[in-house]
Amino acid sequence: MAASFPSRARIVEVGPRDGLQNEAAFVPTPDKIAFVNRLSEAGHTTIEVSAFVSPQWVPQMADASEVCAGITRRPGVRYTALVPNLRGLARAREAGVDEVAVFPAASETFSKRNINQTIDEALGQAKQICEEARAMQLPVRAYLSTSFGCPFEGAVPPERVADLTARLVDLGAYEVSISDTIGVAHPAQVADVLGHVMQRVPAPHLALHFHDTRGTALVNVYAGLEAGVSVFDASAGGLGGCPYAPGATGNLATEDLLYLLDGLGIATGVRIEGVAAASRAIEPLVGHQLPSRMFRALEARSRA
Amino acid sequence: MAASFPSRARIVEVGPRDGLQNEAAFVPTPDKIAFVNRLSEAGHTTIEVSAFVSPQWVPQMADASEVCAGITRRPGVRYTALVPNLRGLARAREAGVDEVAVFPAASETFSKRNINQTIDEALGQAKQICEEARAMQLPVRAYLSTSFGCPFEGAVPPERVADLTARLVDLGAYEVSISDTIGVAHPAQVADVLGHVMQRVPAPHLALHFHDTRGTALVNVYAGLEAGVSVFDASAGGLGGCPYAPGATGNLATEDLLYLLDGLGIATGVRIEGVAAASRAIEPLVGHQLPSRMFRALEARSRA
Repeated sequence: MAASFPSRARIVEVGPRDGLQNEAAFVPTPDKIAFVNRLSEAGHTTIEVSAFVSPQWVPQMADASEVCAGITRRPGVRYTALVPNLRGLARAREAGVDEVAVFPAASETFSKRNINQTIDEALGQAKQICEEARAMQLPVRAYLSTSFGCPFEGAVPPERVADLTARLVDLGAYEVSISDTIGVAHPAQVADVLGHVMQRVPAPHLALHFHDTRGTALVNVYAGLEAGVSVFDASAGGLGGCPYAPGATGNLATEDLLYLLDGLGIATGVRIEGVAAASRAIEPLVGHQLPSRMFRALEARSRA
Repeated sequence: MAASFPSRARIVEVGPRDGLQNEAAFVPTPDKIAFVNRLSEAGHTTIEVSAFVSPQWVPQMADASEVCAGITRRPGVRYTALVPNLRGLARAREAGVDEVAVFPAASETFSKRNINQTIDEALGQAKQICEEARAMQLPVRAYLSTSFGCPFEGAVPPERVADLTARLVDLGAYEVSISDTIGVAHPAQVADVLGHVMQRVPAPHLALHFHDTRGTALVNVYAGLEAGVSVFDASAGGLGGCPYAPGATGNLATEDLLYLLDGLGIATGVRIEGVAAASRAIEPLVGHQLPSRMFRALEARSRA
C-alpha cells in the first residue's frame, strides 16, 4: 500500500493567514509575529504570513505589513501572502514577502459573493498579478476555492476544476492548491477531481487544501497521497473556522496531518511538538479551544 | 481506487456503551433508553446497549438491566452488551440481549490494570463465556483492546494481535473487533496489523474499532476498507472520551463515519440525520459539546 507513497511531503502552513483570518478575534500584531516565528522554529519551510487585502474587507489581516516587518526570517523558509490585486501585490513586495498567492474560485456564485468578480474576471486579475510578479521575480501560487463544492451552487464539475487549474498554470502559477473551502470533499471525490486535473496538469504543480468541517480532511489527504500529490496546506491547531457554518471546524490541523505523515514514514522536516508549541501560545488569544485532535491529545498528556 | 471497496458495510453503534461509559456524567436511565431507540430509528442494525459489569467498577452502566427492559425492540436490530464473566452473561441473558461481547486485551499490562487478569486468564474467561453462551444460543463478539498500542507498554506486536484474534475465533467468537483503545493507530499500522491478522483469520470475522484521539480514526477506516474489512464500530456524536488522556477525543463518531461511507457509495442502511437526532438529544446530558465534526457541521447549518 504505502509503497507508492512519496518519501517526502511539503506542508504549507496557513495558520497565520487562513487560520487567523477566519477567527472572530483580532490577534495582536506581536502575537502574530511570535506565532510565525514559532512555526518557522518548528521546521516549516513555507508559511503564509498574512493577506494584503482591504482592512475593511478582512480586518484580521489589517496588520499584514507590520507582521512581515516584525518576523525573524529564518533561512530556507518562504514567507508568503495572499494578494487580491496589483495594489496588494505592490504592498506585499514592499513588505518583502518571498511569494504571493492568488485565489480565484471554481464556482461562479462563490466568486461573485467572495471577491465580487466573475471567474473570468478573477482569472484576468490573476493574469495581471502573475505578469507583474514575474517582473518582480516573485513566485505565484494559486488557490482554487470551492473545487469540491460551493456553499451556494452545491456540486462543482471536476472538468471545470481541471480547466481552471490548467489555465492558472498557464498564467504562471507554479502550484495550484485545489481547495475544499467548505469541507465537503470525500476520498472518492478527491480521486475523481484529481483524475480530471491530472489529465491536464501533472502532480508536481498540485497541492491540496482541505477543511475538516465534516471530519474527512485527513482521509482526503490520504486519497491525495495515493493519487500522487505531496503538498498539503494545514493550519496549526486547526485554527480558523468555516465562515459558511459558524461553529463548525475549519482548516485541517497541522498536528493531525503530521501524525498521519509521520506514521506513514513520509518526511516533512516539521516537528509536531514545535507546531503544538505555536498552537499553545495562540490558543488563549482566539477565545476557544483549538480543534486539532492531536493537539488536544498532546495537551491532555501534558496535563496528566 | 474505490473499485475494490465493499458495496456494503455494517456499523456497530457503541455510543450507549463505549460512549456513555467513558463520559463523566451519569445519563439517567430514561434518556439512555430514548437514545437507544433513536439509534434504532436511524437504521442501526447492531447497537451495544450497555455492559453487565460491576456498578462499583463502572457506575455509568449500573442500570444495564433497566435499559434493556425499557427499550423498544425494533425488528431486525441486534441489541448487544458487554459481559466480563459468567455472572454478567447470566444477567445479560436475563435482560434479553441478542448477543454478548467479551473484551480481552493484547497488552499484558493493560489487561492487568483494566480487568485485573493476565491475557491468558482473560482468554480462559472468554472460553467459559463462549461455551455457556453457545448453550444459550447467544452469539459472542470479542473486542481485542490495545491492538495498536498500549498506554503502558507502547507498541504491541502485530503477531500477538493475530494470534489472539485467531484464538478468540477458535473459542467461538463470530467476530473480533481489532480495537485501538487509545487512538494511536495510523493507516500504515492498520495495513500491517491486518496483514498479520488476515494470515490467520479471514475478513468476514473481523471488525475495526478506532478512537479519534489523534484525528486518524477515519483514515484508519479507509485503510481497513482497502484491506477488505467492512465492519466498523462507531459512537453517535463521538460520545465518550479517552480515559488515558482526559480531555482528548474518544470514539470515532458515527456521523463522521457515515459521511465517509456515504461518499464512497458504501451502503449501511443508517441515516446520518437520524444519528444526529440521537446525538442532539444526548448532548445536553453529558456536559460538553460532542466532538463529531459532521454533527457540529449539521448543528451549525441548523442554526444558520
